[in-house]
Amino acid sequence: MTQDPLVVFTPSGKRGRFAVGTPILQAARQLGVDLDSVCGGRGICSKCQITPSYGDFPKHGITVADGALSDWNAVEERYKSKRGLIDGRRLGCQAQVQGDVVIDVPPESQVHRQVVRKAAAARDIVMAPATRLFYIEVDEPDMHTPTGDVERIARALETQWDMSGATLAPALLPGLQRVLRQGAWKITVALFQDHRGGAPVITQIWPGLHEGGLHGLAIDLGSTTIAAHLCDLKTGAVLASSGVMNPQIRFGEDLMSRVSYAMMNPGGEKDMTDAVRTALNGLTEAIATEAEIDPQTILEAVFVCNPVMHHLLLGIDPVELGQAPFALATSDSLSLGARDLDLTALAPSAQVYLLPCIAGHVGADAAAVALSEEPGKRDDLSLIVDVGTNAEILLGNKTRVLACSSPTGPAFEGAQISSGQRAAPGAIERIEIDPITKEPRFRVIGSDLWSDEDGFAEATAGSGITGICGSGIIEAVAELRIAGLLDPSGLIGSAEATGTPRCIPEGRTHAYVIHDSTASGGPLITVTQGDIRAIQLAKSALYAGARLLMDEMGVDKVDRVVLAGAFGAHISPKHAMVLGMIPDVPLDAVLSAGNAAGTGARIALCNIDARAEIERVVHQITKVETAIEPRFQEHFVAANAIPHATEPFATLRSIVPLPEVSFNTGGSSDAGGRRRRRRA
Amino acid sequence: MTQDPLVVFTPSGKRGRFAVGTPILQAARQLGVDLDSVCGGRGICSKCQITPSYGDFPKHGITVADGALSDWNAVEERYKSKRGLIDGRRLGCQAQVQGDVVIDVPPESQVHRQVVRKAAAARDIVMAPATRLFYIEVDEPDMHTPTGDVERIARALETQWDMSGATLAPALLPGLQRVLRQGAWKITVALFQDHRGGAPVITQIWPGLHEGGLHGLAIDLGSTTIAAHLCDLKTGAVLASSGVMNPQIRFGEDLMSRVSYAMMNPGGEKDMTDAVRTALNGLTEAIATEAEIDPQTILEAVFVCNPVMHHLLLGIDPVELGQAPFALATSDSLSLGARDLDLTALAPSAQVYLLPCIAGHVGADAAAVALSEEPGKRDDLSLIVDVGTNAEILLGNKTRVLACSSPTGPAFEGAQISSGQRAAPGAIERIEIDPITKEPRFRVIGSDLWSDEDGFAEATAGSGITGICGSGIIEAVAELRIAGLLDPSGLIGSAEATGTPRCIPEGRTHAYVIHDSTASGGPLITVTQGDIRAIQLAKSALYAGARLLMDEMGVDKVDRVVLAGAFGAHISPKHAMVLGMIPDVPLDAVLSAGNAAGTGARIALCNIDARAEIERVVHQITKVETAIEPRFQEHFVAANAIPHATEPFATLRSIVPLPEVSFNTGGSSDAGGRRRRRRA
Repeated sequence: MTQDPLVVFTPSGKRGRFAVGTPILQAARQLGVDLDSVCGGRGICSKCQITPSYGDFPKHGITVADGALSDWNAVEERYKSKRGLIDGRRLGCQAQVQGDVVIDVPPESQVHRQVVRKAAAARDIVMAPATRLFYIEVDEPDMHTPTGDVERIARALETQWDMSGATLAPALLPGLQRVLRQGAWKITVALFQDHRGGAPVITQIWPGLHEGGLHGLAIDLGSTTIAAHLCDLKTGAVLASSGVMNPQIRFGEDLMSRVSYAMMNPGGEKDMTDAVRTALNGLTEAIATEAEIDPQTILEAVFVCNPVMHHLLLGIDPVELGQAPFALATSDSLSLGARDLDLTALAPSAQVYLLPCIAGHVGADAAAVALSEEPGKRDDLSLIVDVGTNAEILLGNKTRVLACSSPTGPAFEGAQISSGQRAAPGAIERIEIDPITKEPRFRVIGSDLWSDEDGFAEATAGSGITGICGSGIIEAVAELRIAGLLDPSGLIGSAEATGTPRCIPEGRTHAYVIHDSTASGGPLITVTQGDIRAIQLAKSALYAGARLLMDEMGVDKVDRVVLAGAFGAHISPKHAMVLGMIPDVPLDAVLSAGNAAGTGARIALCNIDARAEIERVVHQITKVETAIEPRFQEHFVAANAIPHATEPFATLRSIVPLPEVSFNTGGSSDAGGRRRRRRA
Repeated sequence: MTQDPLVVFTPSGKRGRFAVGTPILQAARQLGVDLDSVCGGRGICSKCQITPSYGDFPKHGITVADGALSDWNAVEERYKSKRGLIDGRRLGCQAQVQGDVVIDVPPESQVHRQVVRKAAAARDIVMAPATRLFYIEVDEPDMHTPTGDVERIARALETQWDMSGATLAPALLPGLQRVLRQGAWKITVALFQDHRGGAPVITQIWPGLHEGGLHGLAIDLGSTTIAAHLCDLKTGAVLASSGVMNPQIRFGEDLMSRVSYAMMNPGGEKDMTDAVRTALNGLTEAIATEAEIDPQTILEAVFVCNPVMHHLLLGIDPVELGQAPFALATSDSLSLGARDLDLTALAPSAQVYLLPCIAGHVGADAAAVALSEEPGKRDDLSLIVDVGTNAEILLGNKTRVLACSSPTGPAFEGAQISSGQRAAPGAIERIEIDPITKEPRFRVIGSDLWSDEDGFAEATAGSGITGICGSGIIEAVAELRIAGLLDPSGLIGSAEATGTPRCIPEGRTHAYVIHDSTASGGPLITVTQGDIRAIQLAKSALYAGARLLMDEMGVDKVDRVVLAGAFGAHISPKHAMVLGMIPDVPLDAVLSAGNAAGTGARIALCNIDARAEIERVVHQITKVETAIEPRFQEHFVAANAIPHATEPFATLRSIVPLPEVSFNTGGSSDAGGRRRRRRA
């Protein structure tokens, strides 16, 4: 008796013997090979495309002869003529086993395909979305055995897809019968089944085979900006990205001023909730329009945000977050209906997932960074900082991960800086100061030219040179220090002391002139002593937070520093280190993770196992509360110098010689005292 | 070594030995004795009241001495002085075992108490509600181990009540922190956990110990009337009952005309849905006001209704229910949020349960009747009819239950009757015709006097005598037949043929004058030949439905007939049998069940096991579709006579002699043809 033919699948290597005539799709299912299908093998969805290979395969121990698969058939021909099919491809539901064969499953035919990310350092996304499409053929109603349409749909899902216990979202009930009859009892359903183990829920229905895709939003809800990625829930592709200002800004620039607004105005939290929800609906509509997709196909949204944004999104008064013990109303992840949050621009039964908060000051955005950067999966010790108005700081390795937040204030974003402005065309973003001549050169957003290069004036004529953005001010302060214009205590020298007329008096202190266009009616762009103090406060808070976690971990150095967020994407590691913002590590161990919180949101959107993972990880993270930790104040005061005096900065000193200067005039800022007032 | 004291609980008989000092509440819990507590033994809720008995108890084999329980304590004294406590009662959480003791748990201290119903024939309700109150003491937030308030509430429920996995309804998030702080971290939660096995959900929260009760609505949503009972979910007591007209009447009097309205007016179903939801909100507010309870304590609603009402409540176009195959959009029971149905008058997180529909013509109201009357639990064979504009008919015993609906039309409700009117003061509801004199006497709603009794004129002066209601027209037709004024084919005789001037010509047929007040400007109340035909159509449909089920069951008689609904409460069994509406059974085997559908709703509201039971029962019921069954037409035509000619009516004939008369003039109504048109 001859054996059944052997079928080997690549890349999985899974293999088995199947009777002649077995469809490849069926063989794949029996072996657990990841081969997609929406229509269940009816030859209409084309998701099960495979590529047979012919010839000798010593590695697999078989030879594949012509005729190893059944002949190209009419279903495949019709599909190819209508939609096109790559040469050599077959439909897995049509091609049947005739002899030993090697079958390659291309990435686009895999359900759990990997989405390769551009930033090589970070994890790839493996697709395992909560919502998937299923094409079903529903029994027609029979008055002799009366059952409801919903019940027959549930039966079809059970018999045709082995998905049992499905229910229909109530909002779909009114349109159900029309869709069933439009599709002549053939429909596509979107089935939501998350990691919580509840019964699957049908969240959308379409007549016939739905080919308009399935979409989700990954939303990074920041205090200043709301950024959203529209993702294809099948492929993981980002189809469009868009952002809007958070309209809550009119109630207060930073988090604490919004908390104050809610305190001072009874019901004020409701105004802020309404504002952000309205903005989210507008953003959803805009991004759907941009990507040219039907908003009714947006069936999921994942949110990451800090605790105050989290509470205001949920309609919770954030007042408790403004005072010890910083009690969150709810900290675990939340699964809600879009309608619970008045997100009417999504499909009516769309599902929302909020990542868990880590603590009252460390939000779901920090959890998303942890999910994206995975410090707890590495042997080496990572310090991850995500700087906005607050800095979220993670420190950890395989043994333990710690988290805290630190109130850096808005200086790093260009606010509270005399010539500061948001990162926009015209803003100085890079700066160098010649240590010999003390003359600056700089670049502004919108042009790749330095200010001393030919054509710079023409290139910047449109925007002008309007101010300094966050990354620019950090470089300016560090360059002043490197050029010997600023002493380690943070004092700017006088023209006499420094030998350059760019150091001009300003009250009892001095300022450094970067650019003077007052002659043509433009601004005088300077770095003032006040600016230096603001940056010192901010960087000390950031460094103190990092040091507090290092103390808690019992270490005095880290292996790598990851800068996350817009800050991380634009900051120069060298200048950050000269400022003393981050601990001393080799420059090549300072990495930019881009918008790690947004990436974490995308991961949670595309992969439900990641949701379970971050929920577990967040419970394991050690939370450190900076507000009540006396050592935070000690570190904060000690970190005031540039670079501060108490720490060895061996690596830094090997990169940049820092001149020994002192411009001390006897006065000193009461930085610690100011800090304490801010936080109280 | 002496044994621990013996504690015997009555009425359960459960017993066990417990160490001296064990609180009675704790002993009860360990033995599984049904002793209530909301506060968990903290001496503040008083739900655990018990009565110790002293003396000899030979039945239990123990003697209870003085001092068998610990002394009356300060907690009990304080409770008694503030709220009162029946003499002899103790608080089970305070009284501790000191010696052998017999403890009686009074009914009001039992969770699963029985609610005794007035109608002795029907089942009592055992309390096992989906929503229960739990008093908890929540850990205060600690910034060193930050967790959310929701998470600490869930932990309190787990540690203090052994209820794990509870989540908070999203609508409660905004108010949560205020309630927790108002109650100084002591709160009462309403926890919903139904029979579906999902995680328990907190649907309401109150600061401290909530003593304002917990309420639910049992709603019978009829085509004409919406009736609601407000129930105490703790005791099962009906605190208030109220009804309003279904405002959908303005879109069509009966079900088919509402289906037609939706067919003819695109979006018309939405108008009808909005109308009924608005009415439900108004009804909820009215009933809460009447009962003087806070609508925020109404946390559940259970609906029973026919399929068209069911679909319109859910916002589903009922058009499919108007044509074969009468496909329901959804037939199984539904659990929804009140907000899914725009029921804004209930608490925001209130839960709604809709009983399952049996078939496209046999709704959740029929399922509720099956739940209330339980034909499937009896050895004898019950025929249960619930007559509205459609009749729902159930036939069955322990072996099998069958169901159908029959389109009786509105004649039984007094519509399509020349002098017909709704049951209201002034309507003739009872009538007798003297077989000798052929003179009528009658009673009208609003007076207990018969029309030939002294004082009748004065008693009815206010309302007047305005028409005939449904039960009156049935009696009138039957009495005409008994008095020999109507022949078995349904023809009214002429004055000459009958010898009474009350038989007056009306076109080519005759009418019988019941009351003539035209002289004083009042109405002439007659029974016309058209009225007889309308009643014949209605009763034939009802009887044919019953016969069809009997055929299916293979029987030609039943053991008992249960008349449910308003019809059943007011109809005279004798007259119904003379008409040939119901099969021949002894008169004392014809029972009235009152509003069995409403009772079924109350049962499902108070007992989640009943929900599981009716879902199981409905799947087991054999559905018979009258619309496509040729035998229904045969039975319908055959049942036209009064009483019809093809069936033995032995029991009836022993009660009432029916004169052999014939007034046939050759014409015959094409009843079957008219019927077919109505149903198409």
